[in-house]
Amino acid sequence: MTTLQNGHSKKPLDVAIVGGGLVGSLEALYLAKRGHRVRLYEYREDIRKTPQARGRSINLALSIRGRRALKDVGLEAHMIEQHGIPMVGRMIHRLDGSTYDIPYDARTNQCIYSVGRNYLNSLLLKESENYHNVERSFNHKLIEANLKKGSLTFLNTATKEEVNINADLIIGADGAFSAVRKAMMKQPLFDYSQKYIEHGYLELCIPADESGGFQMPASYLHIWPRGTFMMIALPNQDCSWTVTLFMPFENFKELDTEEKLIDFFEKYFPDSIPLIGRKRLIEDFFSGSPSPLVAVKCRPYNVDDKALIIGDAAHAVVPFYGQGMNAGFEDCTLLDQLFQKYNDNLADILTEFSSSRWRDTYAISDLAMYNYIEMRDLVTRPSYRLRKAFDDLMFWIFPNLWVPLYNSVTFTTMPYSQCVENRRWQNKVLFSIIILMVFIMIFCAFK
Amino acid sequence: MTTLQNGHSKKPLDVAIVGGGLVGSLEALYLAKRGHRVRLYEYREDIRKTPQARGRSINLALSIRGRRALKDVGLEAHMIEQHGIPMVGRMIHRLDGSTYDIPYDARTNQCIYSVGRNYLNSLLLKESENYHNVERSFNHKLIEANLKKGSLTFLNTATKEEVNINADLIIGADGAFSAVRKAMMKQPLFDYSQKYIEHGYLELCIPADESGGFQMPASYLHIWPRGTFMMIALPNQDCSWTVTLFMPFENFKELDTEEKLIDFFEKYFPDSIPLIGRKRLIEDFFSGSPSPLVAVKCRPYNVDDKALIIGDAAHAVVPFYGQGMNAGFEDCTLLDQLFQKYNDNLADILTEFSSSRWRDTYAISDLAMYNYIEMRDLVTRPSYRLRKAFDDLMFWIFPNLWVPLYNSVTFTTMPYSQCVENRRWQNKVLFSIIILMVFIMIFCAFK
Repeated sequence: MTTLQNGHSKKPLDVAIVGGGLVGSLEALYLAKRGHRVRLYEYREDIRKTPQARGRSINLALSIRGRRALKDVGLEAHMIEQHGIPMVGRMIHRLDGSTYDIPYDARTNQCIYSVGRNYLNSLLLKESENYHNVERSFNHKLIEANLKKGSLTFLNTATKEEVNINADLIIGADGAFSAVRKAMMKQPLFDYSQKYIEHGYLELCIPADESGGFQMPASYLHIWPRGTFMMIALPNQDCSWTVTLFMPFENFKELDTEEKLIDFFEKYFPDSIPLIGRKRLIEDFFSGSPSPLVAVKCRPYNVDDKALIIGDAAHAVVPFYGQGMNAGFEDCTLLDQLFQKYNDNLADILTEFSSSRWRDTYAISDLAMYNYIEMRDLVTRPSYRLRKAFDDLMFWIFPNLWVPLYNSVTFTTMPYSQCVENRRWQNKVLFSIIILMVFIMIFCAFK
Repeated sequence: MTTLQNGHSKKPLDVAIVGGGLVGSLEALYLAKRGHRVRLYEYREDIRKTPQARGRSINLALSIRGRRALKDVGLEAHMIEQHGIPMVGRMIHRLDGSTYDIPYDARTNQCIYSVGRNYLNSLLLKESENYHNVERSFNHKLIEANLKKGSLTFLNTATKEEVNINADLIIGADGAFSAVRKAMMKQPLFDYSQKYIEHGYLELCIPADESGGFQMPASYLHIWPRGTFMMIALPNQDCSWTVTLFMPFENFKELDTEEKLIDFFEKYFPDSIPLIGRKRLIEDFFSGSPSPLVAVKCRPYNVDDKALIIGDAAHAVVPFYGQGMNAGFEDCTLLDQLFQKYNDNLADILTEFSSSRWRDTYAISDLAMYNYIEMRDLVTRPSYRLRKAFDDLMFWIFPNLWVPLYNSVTFTTMPYSQCVENRRWQNKVLFSIIILMVFIMIFCAFK
């Protein structure tokens, strides 16, 4: 697995990656495979040595774009076969506790996988130890960056020492509140937007049952859609469920007593109370506070041939399409393809990545915003189910031509912007069909 | 003029304004009139003592919203009668040098005024000297801000001393690259976006003629619309014209020799060459470099009851609607109305300003982006002139009901978001009229 792809005799590049999360540690593997020297700097402690951090989403939906990247670094099979829990569709919970399922892909039964964030991050870091050319530094907080010169200053928070380094390439994979991006913002002509939605999220838990099994059918993403808010649940490997309540902050504020909380759950999520347990519901709800959700768009992603941001640092999205990690992993795959195409010429690689990638990340960002409305509201409407039935039928008849939006995003590696373009084209066709049918009906009526 | 409006016996507020430009110095007057203590901090030297800075737009279009604010502080009459040059419409220059005019308001002949930035800024600063409760500090650069505590640290760039101050209220009026806003960005749930357009601008000059008069009809805003780029000219008080060329940066780059520049002007702006003068055109063009244009949107504008941003700091817009200064001045007027409404209660004032103003500033920002396309391209199209003729006719018949978009933005104080809403409603009516006419025509044809 440690065989290097970089067979040519050029001097390997010296790359500094800021951020040892999912995207940073995956990028380290891609670069290490190419024979470059990688130094990975992480602000936090080594995740493998710390207990689970509360408040960050602890499981994620792995779909085809993420899987392709893991395959490239030799970890897909392990994640899918040993760890991931397949989810074949959405299981909708009605107000009365009854349920029905909506498969993601009725035609070929493709599925997404619920995976643990910490597990995957640890696996990627552990894998990097198989490469002699990767060096990991934890407890390193970025305090200064001169991106044009390729120099960084870290504070070692354990020893309180300052560490100065230089690199051929700096990659910022330091998340939605990226310090590398902050340094980039000083350059002229940098477009930037951060948008908080008016909803926050809070995580709860459905434990395993007494015999250690799942309390709900495990191969679904469970949704309690309630119009202006919703709750979802993803299965964990220990047969528990991570439950996430998404709701306007003002509604969270109103639930300020145990009584109000239980009344609220009895009204909107009655079937979840025995699953979570009344005592645990109260404890978990009041021990945390709702976290905000931010979407970040920016461009360009590079500074000359010296620095680049990827993953959430470049395009944090709201979580409703399950594509945050997948899009970040796809950054690494595309970057690897550009390293191949341009034979490690950083100027060409960074320029092309920067000038082409933003269209797709902007598209998935907009889709994720839209999907919140679909998940919490539209999904329950007859019009949605009718459209889905139509799309599924067309997909069955024309499997290569009529790929429904969700399927193209989740089960193909078609650029996100093209998925959106496809949907527009399908809408036009559907609209034309309806108009045609109306004309035919009028014609028949008057005949 | 120095009579104080604040008749009640409450303790005056201690207000620190960061930025002594147009909006900051106007806000100082508004607050001084109410009897509050105002300290105004400006990063640059006193504008009254420095020669004209090159590269910043030196004349501006003053319209009704700006006039209303100047009236409130007793300066409107002076600006309109002694200084401003009325512009009653657009004068379009065709490729062959021939011209035609499009009046802004054919019905009542309302006009906008070309005013000098430095002149107006100096006037506002001078006026503030009439108030004993306004203190001006120049060469004060903000280097740290704790907005929650209401404390600021400046570096006096003349003496190199640090100056620490505390205030009841901090107002950031420090422009598109606001340091106060930067401090605000650290608070959670702050929405922010900065967008650079792909066009830059460069200023040229048409001097007065030999007898000291205008070389072109002075009561117009002159436009050379050329599709993907344009040139405009606004009259100055010394009978010269400030000419601004707006164009994609890449096109600027292509004009890298004197020959290419002259060829370009001969092709697209032939009538301007004798007006500017060939030698001066070359000198001015190559002595500067094109400046970028940025639009900033953000919210909220306040931090608790302690800090607020206004003007370009809160909502920098591209200059194509001539509303940047007017919108900033309107902030001051609205704020003054809120001081009146809430009897100086800062929590109420700042909360209402922040929760209501953004809709209008977002609207004018979008309108300004759109207007660039109108000015450089649409204005020459028959469809545009047809629509304008229709709007003017409807405005003439229904002066209170059908106010065209440009007129409502420029000649009324209707909230910007309502101007946009009005236009949407007018579009619907127009669309319905067209559909109706088509039906009638079909009906007549088949009868």
